[in-house]
Amino acid sequence: MTRPSGRAPDALRPAILEPGVARHAEGSCRIRMGNTEVLCTASVESRVPPFLRGTGQGWVTAEYGMLPRATHTRSDREAARGKQSGRTQEIQRLIGRSLRAVTDLKAMGEMAVTLDCDVLTADGGTRCASITGAWVALHLAFRHCMKMNVLASMPLKDQVAAVSCGIWQGEPVLDLDYAEDSKAETDANFVLTGRGGLVEVQGTAEGEPFSEAQLLSLLGLARQGTEQLFRLQRSAAGIG
Amino acid sequence: MTRPSGRAPDALRPAILEPGVARHAEGSCRIRMGNTEVLCTASVESRVPPFLRGTGQGWVTAEYGMLPRATHTRSDREAARGKQSGRTQEIQRLIGRSLRAVTDLKAMGEMAVTLDCDVLTADGGTRCASITGAWVALHLAFRHCMKMNVLASMPLKDQVAAVSCGIWQGEPVLDLDYAEDSKAETDANFVLTGRGGLVEVQGTAEGEPFSEAQLLSLLGLARQGTEQLFRLQRSAAGIG
Amino acid sequence: MTRPSGRAPDALRPAILEPGVARHAEGSCRIRMGNTEVLCTASVESRVPPFLRGTGQGWVTAEYGMLPRATHTRSDREAARGKQSGRTQEIQRLIGRSLRAVTDLKAMGEMAVTLDCDVLTADGGTRCASITGAWVALHLAFRHCMKMNVLASMPLKDQVAAVSCGIWQGEPVLDLDYAEDSKAETDANFVLTGRGGLVEVQGTAEGEPFSEAQLLSLLGLARQGTEQLFRLQRSAAGIG
Amino acid sequence: MTRPSGRAPDALRPAILEPGVARHAEGSCRIRMGNTEVLCTASVESRVPPFLRGTGQGWVTAEYGMLPRATHTRSDREAARGKQSGRTQEIQRLIGRSLRAVTDLKAMGEMAVTLDCDVLTADGGTRCASITGAWVALHLAFRHCMKMNVLASMPLKDQVAAVSCGIWQGEPVLDLDYAEDSKAETDANFVLTGRGGLVEVQGTAEGEPFSEAQLLSLLGLARQGTEQLFRLQRSAAGIG
Amino acid sequence: MTRPSGRAPDALRPAILEPGVARHAEGSCRIRMGNTEVLCTASVESRVPPFLRGTGQGWVTAEYGMLPRATHTRSDREAARGKQSGRTQEIQRLIGRSLRAVTDLKAMGEMAVTLDCDVLTADGGTRCASITGAWVALHLAFRHCMKMNVLASMPLKDQVAAVSCGIWQGEPVLDLDYAEDSKAETDANFVLTGRGGLVEVQGTAEGEPFSEAQLLSLLGLARQGTEQLFRLQRSAAGIG
Amino acid sequence: MTRPSGRAPDALRPAILEPGVARHAEGSCRIRMGNTEVLCTASVESRVPPFLRGTGQGWVTAEYGMLPRATHTRSDREAARGKQSGRTQEIQRLIGRSLRAVTDLKAMGEMAVTLDCDVLTADGGTRCASITGAWVALHLAFRHCMKMNVLASMPLKDQVAAVSCGIWQGEPVLDLDYAEDSKAETDANFVLTGRGGLVEVQGTAEGEPFSEAQLLSLLGLARQGTEQLFRLQRSAAGIG
Repeated sequence: MTRPSGRAPDALRPAILEPGVARHAEGSCRIRMGNTEVLCTASVESRVPPFLRGTGQGWVTAEYGMLPRATHTRSDREAARGKQSGRTQEIQRLIGRSLRAVTDLKAMGEMAVTLDCDVLTADGGTRCASITGAWVALHLAFRHCMKMNVLASMPLKDQVAAVSCGIWQGEPVLDLDYAEDSKAETDANFVLTGRGGLVEVQGTAEGEPFSEAQLLSLLGLARQGTEQLFRLQRSAAGIG
Repeated sequence: MTRPSGRAPDALRPAILEPGVARHAEGSCRIRMGNTEVLCTASVESRVPPFLRGTGQGWVTAEYGMLPRATHTRSDREAARGKQSGRTQEIQRLIGRSLRAVTDLKAMGEMAVTLDCDVLTADGGTRCASITGAWVALHLAFRHCMKMNVLASMPLKDQVAAVSCGIWQGEPVLDLDYAEDSKAETDANFVLTGRGGLVEVQGTAEGEPFSEAQLLSLLGLARQGTEQLFRLQRSAAGIG
Repeated sequence: MTRPSGRAPDALRPAILEPGVARHAEGSCRIRMGNTEVLCTASVESRVPPFLRGTGQGWVTAEYGMLPRATHTRSDREAARGKQSGRTQEIQRLIGRSLRAVTDLKAMGEMAVTLDCDVLTADGGTRCASITGAWVALHLAFRHCMKMNVLASMPLKDQVAAVSCGIWQGEPVLDLDYAEDSKAETDANFVLTGRGGLVEVQGTAEGEPFSEAQLLSLLGLARQGTEQLFRLQRSAAGIG
Repeated sequence: MTRPSGRAPDALRPAILEPGVARHAEGSCRIRMGNTEVLCTASVESRVPPFLRGTGQGWVTAEYGMLPRATHTRSDREAARGKQSGRTQEIQRLIGRSLRAVTDLKAMGEMAVTLDCDVLTADGGTRCASITGAWVALHLAFRHCMKMNVLASMPLKDQVAAVSCGIWQGEPVLDLDYAEDSKAETDANFVLTGRGGLVEVQGTAEGEPFSEAQLLSLLGLARQGTEQLFRLQRSAAGIG
Repeated sequence: MTRPSGRAPDALRPAILEPGVARHAEGSCRIRMGNTEVLCTASVESRVPPFLRGTGQGWVTAEYGMLPRATHTRSDREAARGKQSGRTQEIQRLIGRSLRAVTDLKAMGEMAVTLDCDVLTADGGTRCASITGAWVALHLAFRHCMKMNVLASMPLKDQVAAVSCGIWQGEPVLDLDYAEDSKAETDANFVLTGRGGLVEVQGTAEGEPFSEAQLLSLLGLARQGTEQLFRLQRSAAGIG
Repeated sequence: MTRPSGRAPDALRPAILEPGVARHAEGSCRIRMGNTEVLCTASVESRVPPFLRGTGQGWVTAEYGMLPRATHTRSDREAARGKQSGRTQEIQRLIGRSLRAVTDLKAMGEMAVTLDCDVLTADGGTRCASITGAWVALHLAFRHCMKMNVLASMPLKDQVAAVSCGIWQGEPVLDLDYAEDSKAETDANFVLTGRGGLVEVQGTAEGEPFSEAQLLSLLGLARQGTEQLFRLQRSAAGIG
């Protein structure tokens, strides 16, 4: 079997995490996974959503977008169409949940961080890249708050990163690009913490149902892949 | 450990699937899982969406809604607010994917079925109940088409049903109701086929991350639960 | 003359009012008029709309919806389309006005009740059935508030019920079903109080204009029909 | 009893119908009923709505609007708010139905007329004034089509006009202005044809319910009022 | 060269400014520039937008609309379409900026004026006519506030008026009507103050680019035109 | 006088135009003007808008967006808010007009190009930078079409570039950054062609009105600035 990308089944795409790329944001990171490129920014605000006011607790939320020509053929601009698609909303809910899973919201105090993940070029795996890059942006934003004496300590309890895996021609492969993703029989996104815990598992059969054994081998690949991503995150965040 | 519901860890809520409840629909099923009650209807149309015209292939899609007072406190009516929430869109996409996974779209010919899943009373597990009930509605609608000589054979390749499981006070439990769901550390929805294949796995850590072992024990419970649901589906569809 | 339904000109359809059907609502009633079936819930909130704040007065409002497959052919879901139709808004304004007409808003104090009328199956007369059923839901919700010591006395001053009448093949008939309604020359909805007062009269010529005499004979039928509905309401509300 | 306006109970406000005021429209009429002023235009298009294509039948529809400062205090602009209110939709549906009631849609052939009724100044009775003025605009537009040989004969079968009446301090009065309307116990709009038939009756109790006798006395006043309006319409349309 | 309108290159269309035409508004003016007719009203409110609260400063803003049949062929009603076009928003922003340029916002105190400019008939130059007419409406509204002792002095520092000019068949002409505007090679709107200052210049090449010399000759014509408009404004405002 | 930026009055910010940065687009250019950074892509489609079908003529249109954290403090995402602001629509209309001014739409044949200008970092002058960068993207897209034999010759008739100038502390300065723009008394955008023609002039007095002499000196600066931009465009397009 040769993958369309020519990569070994357990090979991640070349991954680059570039911190501090957004001039105005409190934290930011541009992540490239092969040809996929996402700009993640973390914006700090001193106001929490209504349901948290007076609780002393903070909030982390995410928004996701794609430039119209991030894709092979131009997609409609969601702002022009007047609403975000179901896919967009599903992805931004996932990013938000994943980052909140490693954040001590109480330690934040009443402050909110919005993570904007904007896809500049799409070649598969944009939601996973968003999570991985957003962690760096969030870490940098929190550090900025510590430097400004707004926070006494780092509210992040652990790292979090994500990678997609899939069954391609019957075989489990790591980190699908667009060409692979569109032909995979099964597609699964794993969100894992630095200590190896599972934050989110989303497996979907595109054609035939998959088996428990297949699910486990995909998870094994995801562990390998995220290990590398955790190292890159630490290096980008300067805590390597 | 005693669950809030008093059920054994591996006990499903009392489940009732009542077929043919909607006067006008080609197929329908009211499903009750404990206090959760969802009305599923299948509406057949001879027109497919634009991207399928001329392909000879059919389509199955789903919409999900909740009556404003299905919940403990009244929720806004989405029609009045002017848009469907991200949660609603995420759920209806899941239902659609799950049912398409067991449908032979080519065998349908150019015809479309819309599955409407409307929650009359909500007490946890509404998306899973929707999938389980929608299968019966879809089966009955296809049978109606066969009787009308619109279809030569049944396009359903297998059964599909779903159940949610969770880690509650450290222990895996089956079929969470609302009280349990809101306190579970981990919540996972499993969509399984009659032959035991996995169609969709969605696990989310609400608090602490979960482990691979926990994921597997949840999957084990889901298998038990869906076995019972498959029997109820067959009986409701009159193919028991 | 034989009506499509076979009923005598002054015969109501079999009417069933089932109270307390919604688990979470403060008051509820499922009403069936023949094949028309509407679920009415009353939700109590301690906040009134802005224009009433500080006046010591309460408010009663209504929302109306129809499940997509309540009708012969599936209708678009209003939540998916992103707005309520003119028809929906017209109906929910009518229901709200009708119920306010028999409510002592001052006696309520600053509290609001939302009446949700959701049509599960439509076979003509859904707006009238909504009004008749909503009165029971509202009565039960107010009684619940009295039991909870939130209200000292019942703010309902009278009963209110509605029925549609029409000119069918030149003859006045009571309680049109869908088949009759779509062929009636004139269609009129009457909202009457228990003491015989008129709250709302809406007569519309579908074909030829109608005469004053015809309007009066329709009103006579409506009086007969609502007399029966008032009895059923009292029985459903347990005040028979 | 003295009405706020000082008028006799059966006195219409000074009514002026000015035809041909809109430079571009195929037919138009500015109607003043006292201080209420509505600009009605009829726009002819050769395309009918989808549900009529190929039927050889025409259509008449209406849209209603109010300039933001037509009212005592400025109202939000519906275009800026992004949707038409329920009240606006209810009114434009009523205008459309009323004009279709006197139009021979088959005689029109496949052509559509849109009646735009825009309130320049509001002082009560704007929906009734819209109907009365729209009839003149529609008549002129049809005559324009006859002159252009697009129509062989006049598709209007009769005149139609509307007036509101009410119970004010217990007494029936004709043609309510804003001050009267906001204090009337009952408010009823009557749409009548030139031959005396009823097209639409909409009576609403604002406070106490009303009686059959009151409804009839209001209808009597409406007949008197519309008689005068029919003369003014014929004169404005040049068919007096 | 003869302009389609037959006017001399430097001739304004017949201009009529009629003050006080809107019964309810604090200030109003109907302006006609040839066949173009715009109704301008000024509505005073004691509440400023959030960003000005507590600053002691006032605000002037504008909204622009067009009746559906103000144009040769009927345009969609923006309220029905559910949003204002880009053109509408561009124009109302321009009107607001232009009027604020001659208003001493501090002298207003915390009060807001909304200028509604609604086009009753369109024949080119509607945005310019709106600005010219809105100044009169605003002046009258401020005078009303002075009479009511809400304002101690007139917050208008100067007059402001606007006119469009264009290059038509190579020659600069003043005050384009619709027929001229649609064939002009260049179209420029000038907003000028009574003392001759420039508030806004918007020149657009419709075909070939224009030269600096052409821009200047258009500006020269605009000066001539606005001189006449300033006189008409003073006369309409009664300060001639 | 020293400008906040320390630049000489007639000094452009460091300008970098990087062609071909978007992997999927037919043409693209990332433009930096100091800290302002805009990504411009040109997407070719073989379908023209309805009003051009069958005319044999092409179309060029533009959309403009800003990443939420392109600005000092985060702005709402327009896709989430459900509509584009008036400012966004005004800018994208300007970009489209400017590029059409130098395009031979007939020579394009029935094909459409959408120019997406997305601001990655905003520091003043984003609309001007968008125009300048979009020209390069459009040129490259047309060249791509020539290489693919879809176009026989280059439909661009000339170059087009834009720059903003302003009066700052009484003195005309070139190419305002955000700090300068927010304090400038007058702000003017000039869109010029390679041959020196004016395509668009938009001058706005932010405080005091400006004079004709000032307008001319700003135009003089704009000529200087665009000369440099034209050279950079040619170099980026490889036609230097």
